[in-house]
Amino acid sequence: MTAFTPTDRSRAKRLHQRAAYDRESIYPILDAGVVCHVGYSIDGQPYVTPTCYWREGDRLYWHGSSASRMLRQVKTGIPACLTVTHFDGLVLARSGFHSSINYRCVMAFGSAAEVSEKAEKSAALEAFVERLTPGRWAELRPMNDQELKATTVVAMEIEEASAKTRTGQPADDEEDYTLDVWAGVVPIRQITGTAEPDPKLKPGISQPSYLDHFDL
Amino acid sequence: MTAFTPTDRSRAKRLHQRAAYDRESIYPILDAGVVCHVGYSIDGQPYVTPTCYWREGDRLYWHGSSASRMLRQVKTGIPACLTVTHFDGLVLARSGFHSSINYRCVMAFGSAAEVSEKAEKSAALEAFVERLTPGRWAELRPMNDQELKATTVVAMEIEEASAKTRTGQPADDEEDYTLDVWAGVVPIRQITGTAEPDPKLKPGISQPSYLDHFDL
Repeated sequence: MTAFTPTDRSRAKRLHQRAAYDRESIYPILDAGVVCHVGYSIDGQPYVTPTCYWREGDRLYWHGSSASRMLRQVKTGIPACLTVTHFDGLVLARSGFHSSINYRCVMAFGSAAEVSEKAEKSAALEAFVERLTPGRWAELRPMNDQELKATTVVAMEIEEASAKTRTGQPADDEEDYTLDVWAGVVPIRQITGTAEPDPKLKPGISQPSYLDHFDL
Repeated sequence: MTAFTPTDRSRAKRLHQRAAYDRESIYPILDAGVVCHVGYSIDGQPYVTPTCYWREGDRLYWHGSSASRMLRQVKTGIPACLTVTHFDGLVLARSGFHSSINYRCVMAFGSAAEVSEKAEKSAALEAFVERLTPGRWAELRPMNDQELKATTVVAMEIEEASAKTRTGQPADDEEDYTLDVWAGVVPIRQITGTAEPDPKLKPGISQPSYLDHFDL
């Protein structure tokens, strides 16, 4: 896979060794997430809105209520920035200065467009459901026209993107390793708990297999 | 505690029942997080940058390298949006339309200013360290002038903020409760793993008590 070509917009300004522009670095970080943060501006005022997203090739999708301010704005094609962050740990160094966090993040730049054609929109929503819970789309009560109308789906072709990653132990100043300070990493993980069936679940419905091996 | 007064900028456009503007709702969501997403614009191009933050009263702080583009921009006082999101679960309804996620999020609006006075800057960094790891600041090798200079701290007085929260089971259409579809919630949690001491840890240093009851 080739790399995205960074312009000044996505090129890392510091800690270049943590930055990457190739799809091999960027795709896995995007695909490991469910919730992203979408940035857009209205009259110079920035907004950062969390939302679910999914990826197909170089295209990022997200969706929501057609009444959503964020969707009404970004679907006009204004510049957008979609950021995905995984917080992986606290890095406790021997000095405050070298303390840090471990993380994986991607900033993706582009302009979104509405996916309005009915079949394409439905296929996009199916891809989202199937990504999280393979096999579930076929079980669900199909979406009706009113629901499809009330839902806006947008797609953003990634124009450029950068990944930034930090892993591992602190990198302290050489002379600080002799200090009597505990140093190390406190790992942070996002886990899924045991599924909680709806108390109104129809009797006789067993837990579907797509919930067996949830891995977010 | 009083509520923030929403203008069009922070007032929820839909699902009003999920929105709140009072500090009793907003502070706990802010205080439960470590990483936020800061939104700002340069020449109409929005950027969304993840960073650690902390709160004191109505003031949000964040920091980083003085070379950081984000910090160099926001410290000029341009409009900013700081968003904190906790992803709490997948809500699997009997239809795609009513499927959702459980979450707690806050969008806070304001303009940041640099904390440049040395004692105030150091106190802010101490507050950050102590918030995460109470007692650790006194253990650390003190910051030197060069490190303080290489670190930028900014503070943003919250002008307005809104919280949005979803909890609990799906709310399906009445007629869908008879369908043969599993429905419920898959809880998502952020947890801390067992601390991993730096292999270069000086022998004889035991794990500090502030790591015993980590709760993020």
